[in-house]
Amino acid sequence: MDKLTLIKVGGKIVEEEDSLYRLLADFAAIEGYKVLVHGGGRSATKLAGQLGIESRMVNGRRITDEDMLRVVTMVYGGLVNKNIVAGLQARGVNALGLTGADMNVIRSVKRPVKDVDYGFVGDVQCVDGALLADLIRKGLVPVMAPLTHDGKGSMLNTNADTIAGETAKALAVHFDVTLVYCFEKRGVLRDEADENSVIPVITPADFRHYVDEGVIQGGMIPKLENSFEAIAAGVREVIITSASAIDGRGGTVVRATAD
Amino acid sequence: MDKLTLIKVGGKIVEEEDSLYRLLADFAAIEGYKVLVHGGGRSATKLAGQLGIESRMVNGRRITDEDMLRVVTMVYGGLVNKNIVAGLQARGVNALGLTGADMNVIRSVKRPVKDVDYGFVGDVQCVDGALLADLIRKGLVPVMAPLTHDGKGSMLNTNADTIAGETAKALAVHFDVTLVYCFEKRGVLRDEADENSVIPVITPADFRHYVDEGVIQGGMIPKLENSFEAIAAGVREVIITSASAIDGRGGTVVRATAD
Repeated sequence: MDKLTLIKVGGKIVEEEDSLYRLLADFAAIEGYKVLVHGGGRSATKLAGQLGIESRMVNGRRITDEDMLRVVTMVYGGLVNKNIVAGLQARGVNALGLTGADMNVIRSVKRPVKDVDYGFVGDVQCVDGALLADLIRKGLVPVMAPLTHDGKGSMLNTNADTIAGETAKALAVHFDVTLVYCFEKRGVLRDEADENSVIPVITPADFRHYVDEGVIQGGMIPKLENSFEAIAAGVREVIITSASAIDGRGGTVVRATAD
Repeated sequence: MDKLTLIKVGGKIVEEEDSLYRLLADFAAIEGYKVLVHGGGRSATKLAGQLGIESRMVNGRRITDEDMLRVVTMVYGGLVNKNIVAGLQARGVNALGLTGADMNVIRSVKRPVKDVDYGFVGDVQCVDGALLADLIRKGLVPVMAPLTHDGKGSMLNTNADTIAGETAKALAVHFDVTLVYCFEKRGVLRDEADENSVIPVITPADFRHYVDEGVIQGGMIPKLENSFEAIAAGVREVIITSASAIDGRGGTVVRATAD
């Protein structure tokens, strides 16, 4: 199968001009089929603040009432997405900006209210991998905003890591997929204080071991659980790295087995 | 050739919930191939105002400095476009929201500074009609925001009437195109004060006659000039009507000849 690289970058990287330009150049240089999934939370928080709308987060997720849905639709679907698309076009990448509503590419369901009412937040139900694969084979490069829709007329705010993972799984039927999660650190660290302590490879057995030992904790646990889930669903490998190394070199490779 | 209807709706219609819902239902009911081009100026002015950014208009066109470009990218490319796309998806229309940057579908050049520096405003250079035709024949319905790009990494604010006209011309090679401009009035009126004085058909000869007589004046003159230009470039007919009659009935039909 043809190789495909799916890169997920967080808000900070795409929201500052210097790091955005570097990312665009690095992403343009990736050979073969590729997809970019972006965040934009900081810009959303900033615009909300300017409009007098309070940003409330629970378990790292944004509570999205009607006003906040308007803000994230503007920031993720408009400002951040279109600046990336225009920037990639200038670098010879035939980018197509997408939310889940466009071509019904990602349908979600509004998260049911349990302990917390997250509001207009979507849990992904279905990614149209065949449609995306068709566009990608035509030479288009999807640039996906962290927004989906409910099929009933409403946009839904949707976690970018989730979009990346679900899209990677849907594309794994059509391509040999490498999923790269970019974040602030160089990879999964053995010692949080030491950037040079990147764990090069993590298998499920390693993971349990590191969690038991307390080496891996906090927000990294769901990130790795999602990574193993993606691999179980057919994604070849998941790389956790920093945005300054989106080719994955020097990061942590998450694999089903050690070899 | 297959028929295609291209509808251009102004900001007011898509920005108020009642008229938006009516438009979505009416647009969904149009049979055959179709494209929607939307504005959003009122929402842009409102958001700019909330952010303390002054909206300056010259000859009915928005001066677009860097801050205003961010506003229109958010409002046109995000808020307005995605709400329409999600609303059409809910009504069974497989909508795809596009700016000119997406797939490089409309490339513009930043308007040269003459008497007025309009800032980041684009004059359309090239519409990729073949690409749009290919998407449309696959069952997709493009929903086009009034934004293009310069191919050098910058988005450009671009008049929605111009996008509609240029897109209609580019599609006229592939389809039998009817271009419908929706505005506040029921059509071109013989008497501005009388909504029942719609002129049913206008040819170039009629137009010169009406302009000489002072029946047609102001902003309607460039609208009609653009319409004749579209017809000269192969668009079958242009209809000027109100958004409550997007099927064109009761509006003014602009044609090359009277019959």
